[in-house]
Amino acid sequence: MTNNDFDLTGSEALRSVFRNHASGIALITALDSDGNPIGFTASSVTSLGSTPPLVSFNIAQGSSSYPHLVAGSPVALHTLDANTLHLAQRLAGPKDQRFTGDEATGQGNVPIFEQCPAILVGRIRERFEVESNAVVVLEVESSRVSAVPSKPLVYFQRGYYTIGEKLADNS
Amino acid sequence: MTNNDFDLTGSEALRSVFRNHASGIALITALDSDGNPIGFTASSVTSLGSTPPLVSFNIAQGSSSYPHLVAGSPVALHTLDANTLHLAQRLAGPKDQRFTGDEATGQGNVPIFEQCPAILVGRIRERFEVESNAVVVLEVESSRVSAVPSKPLVYFQRGYYTIGEKLADNS
Repeated sequence: MTNNDFDLTGSEALRSVFRNHASGIALITALDSDGNPIGFTASSVTSLGSTPPLVSFNIAQGSSSYPHLVAGSPVALHTLDANTLHLAQRLAGPKDQRFTGDEATGQGNVPIFEQCPAILVGRIRERFEVESNAVVVLEVESSRVSAVPSKPLVYFQRGYYTIGEKLADNS
Repeated sequence: MTNNDFDLTGSEALRSVFRNHASGIALITALDSDGNPIGFTASSVTSLGSTPPLVSFNIAQGSSSYPHLVAGSPVALHTLDANTLHLAQRLAGPKDQRFTGDEATGQGNVPIFEQCPAILVGRIRERFEVESNAVVVLEVESSRVSAVPSKPLVYFQRGYYTIGEKLADNS
């Protein structure tokens, strides 16, 4: 194998690889500085350790939500399943259509989509800025999980999928 | 909805939510300070912006690999599909069985699993330490992608899955 086999460079090298990588999709909700709801979809949500419980996600600093995700801000994170695909689509759509006004609210008045299979609430702990993007670290406070099993939503090659065949247990 | 609905706290709050969240699985390979191959599976690999192309993943500082993932170190990141499930299992297993000795090598002599659907090579840029864990940021140099379409590997509820039905395009 030679370096010539690695024929893609720059941003195309990145994009080509992540087109081949599946991810979960989460909804993140918070409040802007006027107390209005903000929310967006994130495919970068991941655990950052359990003692203390921390979550990280990545966001562009140019995002309209970024100025509101400051240390101490309350945030809710929702996992999605096949039944809540419409919420992924709504929160990836036009900003003025992301909330209907009849969402529930949790701690700190943050909007909560109660139909999601698992919902976690916490606060922004810190942000690490890297070039024009940032890693946001969230301190977990509490969560609720639906007792009804469901199939998680998976994002792959610009499409929404459910999971399919189970290949193996990690035991 | 009241705060009492959020009945899980602490690390159980975190774990219960991530049990309901799907993720992709990647293999990360590098070299230890003696030039021996190291490698592990990661479910936290995600893009951190394309200009310049950056990737992040999370790791425990107590991991045996962590001391070797220092700024400037060459690293390879491999996506996985249903056909390379055995590599996910091997690199999550005993350390002395992770490499067979006949792996290819790429830039900087880093081990490469050529059968993976997409492979990205780059270097560690920086690490952000948070409690006992860290966010590792990787600068992307180049990549190669198989021309053969395949179904990505998905990790969910401690099991390995492929994707199933396509529900919608994100267009």
